[in-house]
Amino acid sequence: MPTVRVGVDLGGTKILAVKLVGDEVVEVKKVKTPQTGDPSDVFDRIASVIDVVDPERESEGVGVGMPGRVDRESGVLTAPPNLKGFDKPIAVRDELVARTGRMIQIDNDVNVATLAEQQVGAARSVDNVLGVFMGTGVGGGVILDGRLRRGPRGLAGEIGHTIIRSGGRKCGCGGRGHLEAYAGRAALERQARKRHAAGESTKLVDLAGTGRMRSSVWEQAIEAGDPVANSLVDEAKEAMIAGVTSALVLLDVELVVLGGGFAHRLGGKFRRSIEKGVAAEAFSNSGVPVVQSKMGDNSGAIGAAFLLSNDGR
Amino acid sequence: MPTVRVGVDLGGTKILAVKLVGDEVVEVKKVKTPQTGDPSDVFDRIASVIDVVDPERESEGVGVGMPGRVDRESGVLTAPPNLKGFDKPIAVRDELVARTGRMIQIDNDVNVATLAEQQVGAARSVDNVLGVFMGTGVGGGVILDGRLRRGPRGLAGEIGHTIIRSGGRKCGCGGRGHLEAYAGRAALERQARKRHAAGESTKLVDLAGTGRMRSSVWEQAIEAGDPVANSLVDEAKEAMIAGVTSALVLLDVELVVLGGGFAHRLGGKFRRSIEKGVAAEAFSNSGVPVVQSKMGDNSGAIGAAFLLSNDGR
Repeated sequence: MPTVRVGVDLGGTKILAVKLVGDEVVEVKKVKTPQTGDPSDVFDRIASVIDVVDPERESEGVGVGMPGRVDRESGVLTAPPNLKGFDKPIAVRDELVARTGRMIQIDNDVNVATLAEQQVGAARSVDNVLGVFMGTGVGGGVILDGRLRRGPRGLAGEIGHTIIRSGGRKCGCGGRGHLEAYAGRAALERQARKRHAAGESTKLVDLAGTGRMRSSVWEQAIEAGDPVANSLVDEAKEAMIAGVTSALVLLDVELVVLGGGFAHRLGGKFRRSIEKGVAAEAFSNSGVPVVQSKMGDNSGAIGAAFLLSNDGR
Repeated sequence: MPTVRVGVDLGGTKILAVKLVGDEVVEVKKVKTPQTGDPSDVFDRIASVIDVVDPERESEGVGVGMPGRVDRESGVLTAPPNLKGFDKPIAVRDELVARTGRMIQIDNDVNVATLAEQQVGAARSVDNVLGVFMGTGVGGGVILDGRLRRGPRGLAGEIGHTIIRSGGRKCGCGGRGHLEAYAGRAALERQARKRHAAGESTKLVDLAGTGRMRSSVWEQAIEAGDPVANSLVDEAKEAMIAGVTSALVLLDVELVVLGGGFAHRLGGKFRRSIEKGVAAEAFSNSGVPVVQSKMGDNSGAIGAAFLLSNDGR
């Protein structure tokens, strides 16, 4: 009998639950994240969505992925961005166990996304994997010898905050020269607006106006040959090459999975240029493939579903 | 009964063997590395020195550390700097097993130096450790969850070739912006001579003449307040802060051990400034101690002695 697994992705706007039989997704349920500011409402909603996808309790336990800093030992979540009412550390795992009567494991969203790729996605059956996710920021997950590397304080994998240019551009976190400051969508938007304000015209601002400079805007501007978009994405590429190279020489992984909405929009050309750049740079590491992530919107929930089976390894 | 262990450090000029009972070094034997250019002579010498420190074969096996790239699975050594006649890959482990009739494990010198610190040195009983060794170059070793991280191709831990300044100063390996290009003694000497040739006077050249700019020369020049030495060591410090910070956010280790002859000469002030800089930089990682390595000249051999017992973990 194939194993039945349930995973939940808790986000700022939606809660998504999946049920898998073996590697196959057989149920998906998406609901809105309560915006009342009371975490109890969020936990109640998660518990009910779990019951919807697995009413018969076929799954041994449930994995839940979420933004923020997750202490897996204690099951406590700290400082998630975009979750209203979660300002103080909160014992998410205990709250969910109390409501569901099920085994619960929690982890952060980038870790579970990396796990999803390794279990059923682009890094299937690969034991040493670096996942890099370019979205608003740049997140990372590391699988070493078949296990997610979390580290004693659960802080491992934060490739977005590795320093690729000592003393360089300021990052959203306050540090300088971090990869995220060169390759995260929000950081690139800040640079584009700064250059626009200084007198450079750019399609990026023409298209986005005063609204958020979405990944699709970047895609259109690049396609139109916009010089500001091109030069910023070139910088992002160089930064990614440096960050990934450093991770490779430190970790010696076999495969890099590139994911996230921003990377997806920048497309295969961007990915291949990183792969090529890393092969040229990396000390004795030439030939490590950089592949596109395979998982779509359900990746967080699917990866979370594998949290329990990955524990024992 | 405490375990009896034997370890050997194979270097370009000397071969050093130690015998330990428990954590205690009870025998040390140092001989010259044969310079005939025939690897057989080196293997014979290693075999005989093993018999000198452990004639009764009390040790279950022998660990041997060496420079270059070591494939532990196959026991093959590739491209060791400073070993005459080792130009082609060579099955060091098999050669030593054939000569000694003992179990042999081999690994590279930086890995065994890190292992020595974790087994009996400054990182004793710490499960997650980064070792950084500043000498002619910059080497590194990584212990995660109590085990040396080697990676599927045995390339892990090469912190000296992580990129701290994308597009920056050229490294001896040909890459750009590597930590080693800013913090290795040989790279600093190149910079000092370049600045001297361009007209800056410096005690570094006064003291070293045309000879090698030894670590002791750097120490003297710093003590004398030499501006060139100061500015280059400041750059080395900033580079180390960036490289160590990046490793910490990626790996989440609990302790950093700083070793190597150059770091040793730069002293406690240098070490503390790195510790302070990393605490200020590292994303959610403040408070990771950076401690001085405790092991002296015998560290390679002592670490190698623990290779066999570390395998099973």
